[in-house]
Amino acid sequence: MLAEEIKGCSVAQAEECAAWLRGQMIDAVRENGGHLASNLGVVELIVALYAVFDFPHDKLIFDVGHQCYAHKLLTGRSLDRLRKQDGVSGFPDPQESEYDAFIAGHSGTSIAAGIGMCAARDRIGDRYKVISLIGDASLGNGVALEAVFSSEKKPSDFVVILNDNGMSIDKNHSALYRSLCKMSAKRRYRTFNSFLSRRFKETGAFGRKLRKIKYTIKGWMNKNDFFERCGFKYVGPVNGHDLHELLTMLGNISKLEEPVLLHVVTQKGKGYEAAEADPARFHGVSKNFAAGENSFAVALGRILCERAALDESLVAVTAAMTEGVGLSDFAQQYPDRLYDAGICEEAAVTMAAGMAKGGISPVVCMYSTFLQRAYDQIVHDVCLQNLPVIFCVDRAGFVGADGKTHQGLQDLSALRTIPNLSVFAPKDCAELADVFDYAWNKATPCVIRYPNGYAPNLGQRQPISDYYLWETLTEGEELIVLASGARAVARAIDARRISGCPCRVVNCRTIKPLDERLLRDIADRKIITFEEGYACGGFGSAVAEYYASYAQPVRLKIIGAENKFIPHATTLEQAEACHLSVQDLARKIKAFSEQR
Amino acid sequence: MLAEEIKGCSVAQAEECAAWLRGQMIDAVRENGGHLASNLGVVELIVALYAVFDFPHDKLIFDVGHQCYAHKLLTGRSLDRLRKQDGVSGFPDPQESEYDAFIAGHSGTSIAAGIGMCAARDRIGDRYKVISLIGDASLGNGVALEAVFSSEKKPSDFVVILNDNGMSIDKNHSALYRSLCKMSAKRRYRTFNSFLSRRFKETGAFGRKLRKIKYTIKGWMNKNDFFERCGFKYVGPVNGHDLHELLTMLGNISKLEEPVLLHVVTQKGKGYEAAEADPARFHGVSKNFAAGENSFAVALGRILCERAALDESLVAVTAAMTEGVGLSDFAQQYPDRLYDAGICEEAAVTMAAGMAKGGISPVVCMYSTFLQRAYDQIVHDVCLQNLPVIFCVDRAGFVGADGKTHQGLQDLSALRTIPNLSVFAPKDCAELADVFDYAWNKATPCVIRYPNGYAPNLGQRQPISDYYLWETLTEGEELIVLASGARAVARAIDARRISGCPCRVVNCRTIKPLDERLLRDIADRKIITFEEGYACGGFGSAVAEYYASYAQPVRLKIIGAENKFIPHATTLEQAEACHLSVQDLARKIKAFSEQR
Repeated sequence: MLAEEIKGCSVAQAEECAAWLRGQMIDAVRENGGHLASNLGVVELIVALYAVFDFPHDKLIFDVGHQCYAHKLLTGRSLDRLRKQDGVSGFPDPQESEYDAFIAGHSGTSIAAGIGMCAARDRIGDRYKVISLIGDASLGNGVALEAVFSSEKKPSDFVVILNDNGMSIDKNHSALYRSLCKMSAKRRYRTFNSFLSRRFKETGAFGRKLRKIKYTIKGWMNKNDFFERCGFKYVGPVNGHDLHELLTMLGNISKLEEPVLLHVVTQKGKGYEAAEADPARFHGVSKNFAAGENSFAVALGRILCERAALDESLVAVTAAMTEGVGLSDFAQQYPDRLYDAGICEEAAVTMAAGMAKGGISPVVCMYSTFLQRAYDQIVHDVCLQNLPVIFCVDRAGFVGADGKTHQGLQDLSALRTIPNLSVFAPKDCAELADVFDYAWNKATPCVIRYPNGYAPNLGQRQPISDYYLWETLTEGEELIVLASGARAVARAIDARRISGCPCRVVNCRTIKPLDERLLRDIADRKIITFEEGYACGGFGSAVAEYYASYAQPVRLKIIGAENKFIPHATTLEQAEACHLSVQDLARKIKAFSEQR
Repeated sequence: MLAEEIKGCSVAQAEECAAWLRGQMIDAVRENGGHLASNLGVVELIVALYAVFDFPHDKLIFDVGHQCYAHKLLTGRSLDRLRKQDGVSGFPDPQESEYDAFIAGHSGTSIAAGIGMCAARDRIGDRYKVISLIGDASLGNGVALEAVFSSEKKPSDFVVILNDNGMSIDKNHSALYRSLCKMSAKRRYRTFNSFLSRRFKETGAFGRKLRKIKYTIKGWMNKNDFFERCGFKYVGPVNGHDLHELLTMLGNISKLEEPVLLHVVTQKGKGYEAAEADPARFHGVSKNFAAGENSFAVALGRILCERAALDESLVAVTAAMTEGVGLSDFAQQYPDRLYDAGICEEAAVTMAAGMAKGGISPVVCMYSTFLQRAYDQIVHDVCLQNLPVIFCVDRAGFVGADGKTHQGLQDLSALRTIPNLSVFAPKDCAELADVFDYAWNKATPCVIRYPNGYAPNLGQRQPISDYYLWETLTEGEELIVLASGARAVARAIDARRISGCPCRVVNCRTIKPLDERLLRDIADRKIITFEEGYACGGFGSAVAEYYASYAQPVRLKIIGAENKFIPHATTLEQAEACHLSVQDLARKIKAFSEQR
């Protein structure tokens, strides 16, 4: 394994290794898609860490985790099937390797996790280093800030590496930094001026917002004692692409017991020209570096631009997902009506609640997996006050290659139990517009959930109304398939055809409220509920509850995902793994219709 | 209304008003229970705010909200029935008064809400001041920190008042502070030294931890430019009990357009000797200033002390709730094994995950309403890695006087849908010990939920095991009552007696997994599920799902709370309001058993 070979290697060997890693990961991402810019930025840093520290005895904790490719390659994992079914995950995963000390996929967790791990180590009497690697954007997240401020004393043998790929930083003159330079003794520390004067190049509202947050925090760091006051010895900034510097500095740090914050300045996309020039575009890409195709996100962006032109009160709120949720055009057309809170999902939602209370109408656009980070804010700040906030929940259902840290299988069950909150799932992009307008007119808290990827329009279109909550798509008397969500409805239509069973397919675009009129009408039929989410607590569960609220026995079959974490694969493979494919549903329809 | 009378009042009048308010709130809390120390600390500050600003045109946003009594009295609300059914809430509530600009009950929300409200105001073109009043402990919460760091530019006409009741602060010499002193011109600013050198007196692990966080943040504040760098003009510190100072300072601030942070130093419990001496004890009290009686919290504390003596790996984690969750003795006996993260629910859970990953066994003790703030951390950091973390969830079910911001009605539905997580609800304190040991031996993520208040032991005791998941308490063939949770089980036993119907009462102490063996056995009977939580997504829903997973028609009736926010009252009144009393259940048992 490379990890063992480069232990204590020379600078030249390390540089060779870094070049090899870059080639590997560029090829892998070109073939499989993935996160490129962030991974290219930390190659030297990861190599230097492995050259100096003793993993997996020492623990390396990633934050967010989309910078772990070099780490995976060094620990003997091929990226040939990166993010593909049975290939390696795009994120650290302790189930995959003992070198992956902690899960990562969401932001801001590494420092708190590191503090906890040190506490365990010290209680047990083990001896190892705990190293948390966190990006500058993640540092602005509430969990990270809570952990940084948690106490003025931090555990010993704890190293936080701040991977700063955005800020321009003044040269550092802290006492420890100078003493470390002395320890290395052999050469003077090179000036970083040209390197550091480089400006952060991310474009668009996301880039601007992130820059703002970074400058705010940067202000602190330049005081030099930001981290000192929080209990760390501050060391840096170090040029994250200079292996000589990194090896020297990390070598010295490895001998210190005190908690250290090492500030490493890196360049996103380093070593691949196109990615250096436009790191935002190369943040996450599909095969051949293409942008992913997300029908609903595109449709949402168009709808919001159109409605914003008609209604001055519409504003959009997101949390470092402007492009992903489809708001790039909105950001161009209405820059002062887009609020990107950075990776601060909680503050974003509470801010939206404040906006709604102040008389405007925020549309909060987030991925399902990240919205769950603001669960309390949805309950306490938005729904308790019954405020007109619309949550557009993207990446709901299977997410594909991002895998288990990013699945959108839980939003339905978590959200539908919140009082005052309505929950919708349009069957296609055309219906998204109808549902959005319906939610807009309700002027109470609403969730609209939809998946990523390509989503065809399904043809029929019956505008949603208080009376027509659900839409009957095909006629049929004996067996009723209540399908909720775009993929479920599309599959139900196909499954009906394949099964040869003339069942009635209903597009259940409202999960809360349910269409009780329709449910009453079909109470004596065989009923299947079908959804792409956990069966546990989801749409089918709501239907079962409805009948059980008045003790009505029904022949109801709930079909949804088993309650487990689903690893990376294509969304179709994930559906198959959970027995939610068209064929699975057709088989179940047939079996149930034949049942006496 | 007093709010109008004291507008522009003299210092003498303001002092008279403050004295009256103190008397009112001491009497009200003696009679009704409530938060005393925090309310006594801000009397002068609230009076001064009302004397200077123009509420409700200007907006006053509380944080946490347990310091709103003076505000309620000034705005014409009697505290005679404070926290009682149909009396005023102990927290701000926009439904109660237009003076309550935003909900509060959870911590750290006021700054983000204020920023959002300013954004709305500026978009609409309104003109008013937005004032967020936040305590120093709340400032360490992630949402607050996210909002503070959100941007280096803050909205104009936005005032954050930092109610600092814990830190010793060096005298401030910031430029704005001096210029404000100049503006006031007529007298020199009194030295605070004697006042400020006072040491924060909270005792116990909670106090120590809070003090640590405060000192960390204090370190920053003493730099004077903490808030300046985050976009605020910093003013202070001001003696929060000197009305002359407050009126002058606020008067000057009211004329500024720039965003201002006013640092006010107050003393918890001010003006009531016993509360000054022991503010922690007078934080929240019952009638006649007695401590509340919480059987489960006491039992948990005892269990953890006992188990900690047997197993070195047990540690306890909480988030500023050490006394509330019953850990006072544990804190005394095992001070180095109690980790109180301050009001940082997220970091607390992620830290616990790190501990578990590092090989020790954390027991996270939190109230239900606050645990929901760490929802993503439970999913992503604990359950995804299937770590042995036990969550002891107190105040689950109706919470009584704290009301709708604090209800524990949602934990069951939110938590039971998380993969790998087991969910338990013991019927009494004796069973808590059994369930705790069972969860401990499982060594996977577990939730144990139980209510506040007095909980009698119900007598029977069948140790829980993989085979005996549920416990049959009374025999009966036709109608089965599946009761889950201490209050539900106790009521079910009583309701059986009252109803005269010989139903079988089952103590369903595991919600996840269900006792499927027992469910299969009773599939052809009439079944009632009964719980103190939202019927939507809760225990009954899980039972309905089970039968629907294989399309088994059952005569199942789910009884739980309607899906709405339940205001303050006694827990019994809340149960009655939700038709969950013994009488309600008895009536339903009778009606269902008579149904053909």
